[in-house]
Parts: sequence; structure tokens; C-alpha cells
Amino acid sequence: MKIYMAILLLLPLLGLVNGHGCDEACTVENAIKYLVEHTYPVPELDCTTVNARGADVSCPTGYLATGCSCGMACGSWNLVGKSQCHCQCANIDWTSAVCCRNVRS
Amino acid sequence: MKIYMAILLLLPLLGLVNGHGCDEACTVENAIKYLVEHTYPVPELDCTTVNARGADVSCPTGYLATGCSCGMACGSWNLVGKSQCHCQCANIDWTSAVCCRNVRS
Amino acid sequence: MKIYMAILLLLPLLGLVNGHGCDEACTVENAIKYLVEHTYPVPELDCTTVNARGADVSCPTGYLATGCSCGMACGSWNLVGKSQCHCQCANIDWTSAVCCRNVRS
Repeated sequence: MKIYMAILLLLPLLGLVNGHGCDEACTVENAIKYLVEHTYPVPELDCTTVNARGADVSCPTGYLATGCSCGMACGSWNLVGKSQCHCQCANIDWTSAVCCRNVRS
Repeated sequence: MKIYMAILLLLPLLGLVNGHGCDEACTVENAIKYLVEHTYPVPELDCTTVNARGADVSCPTGYLATGCSCGMACGSWNLVGKSQCHCQCANIDWTSAVCCRNVRS
Repeated sequence: MKIYMAILLLLPLLGLVNGHGCDEACTVENAIKYLVEHTYPVPELDCTTVNARGADVSCPTGYLATGCSCGMACGSWNLVGKSQCHCQCANIDWTSAVCCRNVRS
């Protein structure tokens, strides 16, 4: 009975997919995979830059810092937590952070 | 017959979705899209920092380096492969890498 | 009638999933979630490095810059838009960018 119902489910779902994507193995998994790939695209990487005076800058909420830049040609920095840049050289005038997150595209 | 079965599938699936999300075009694609978006959130960007003495540091397995920082104020570095930072200035005392990957949220 | 059809849909879908993953609450949402997680893996973060002579370099189309590196030990750079690195020190000889995007894995 369960197998009969499974076939009952399979047929229309595969019928909808068949002909546009599912050329080889038309399983339920492939049918859902096809529909998901065509209705649910890959989330996009979304990055923004923030700048601040001084030696520290924080990313907006929900973003993570992927890299930092410092004034005075300084290349020595560290992250504070996962979303804040700190430049280590003395008397730093500005700090910037590249901040990224994933968003539904 | 196939169309009849498709309707048979459509009705309950749309019935489940209808009323909370699918206001306009209640197709099977929209129904699955709705369910996926509410059961399968956007993967999160996950980043961590690694530090090492000397001019080289490697990200943990599965992570890619998105930026590097070097001791001695040095801003000249390059990636070795996709997950290792190498600082180019002479006598570098420390190197750090920001390492990222996607994880199911 | 709608409830009857919903049950008609539920049974085979849950029957397919039941036994390998859906131990607790076997709802339609969980069944689709299970199938999606097993047919639609987390998109991979994909990064590449680009290098150029001078103070500027652009990421390939579709990539965003997550960090920059400059010749002459310079750590002061900024992004131009979201995919271009600009090194700010005078007479920069080379610039490189780490460029990332998400890809279906």
C-alpha cells in the first residue's frame, strides 16, 4: 500500500520535472533537487567596507571581518572577536574593515 | 491521467502552504520554495583567525584564507595555495590569517 | 477533503524518508528538509588571488575582494567598489587581491 502511494506521488512529480532537467535517473530526490536548484539559487556573498578614525572599526551586525587595512602604511592588525579590526601600529589615524555575510540571492 | 495526478499532488501541497506565504501564484515551485526557505536557511559565513610565529600560517582544513596580517607593520603578503598566508618582509616575527568557510546555519 | 489529500501526500513522502533521518517528528517540512540536506549541500566558498603591477587590481567578474596586499610592505589600501583593490602608498610596485564568491558544491 505504501509502495502504491509512493508511485502515486512519484508519477506527477516526475511528470512535472521530466522533459526539462531530469534526463537520466528520475528519482524523487532528483526531482526535488531540480526544483530546488531552479527555485533556490546559491546564496550570494555580500561584502561592504567600513571606515573609522583611530585604530579600531566594527563591522555592521551580521557581518564578519575578512580583512583589515590601516593608515600609516601599517600592515599589522588583528581581529577583536570576529567582526572588529584593530590596527597595532602607534598613532594610527584610520582603520577600515572588509565585512562579509551570506544573503539569499 | 498525468494531469489528474498532478492536480492530486498540487492540492494538498498548496493547501499546506496556502495562507502563510503563498499569496500570489500558488504553483508547486512556489510551494517547495516556500517550504525550503522556511526549513533551510541561508548558510552562514563562518570565519576564524589563526596565528603563528614566523612568516607563515595555515588555515584549518576546510577553511580558505580571505586576508593576512604580518608583524613588523608589514603589509606585503601572499597566499600559498588557497589557505596559507606568507608574509614577505624580512625577519617577520608573526603572521595571522583570517580563515572562512560556509556552514549550514 | 483537503485533509484527506494531505494525508495521502504525507504517507508516501514520509514513507520514503522514514528509517533514514526522520526519527522524531515526521512532518512534510522535515521530510523536505531531509531530502534537501541530502541532495543540496552547502554552497562552497570559492576564493582566488589576482596580482597586477602598480597600485590597482580587479577581481574577476562575480567575485568580491575580501582583502588586499601591497608591495613595499604597505598595509594601507582601500576597495574601489566591491571588487577592486587600491594600494595607497607612493610608487607601489604590485597589488594583489583575495577574491571570493559562493559556488554550488
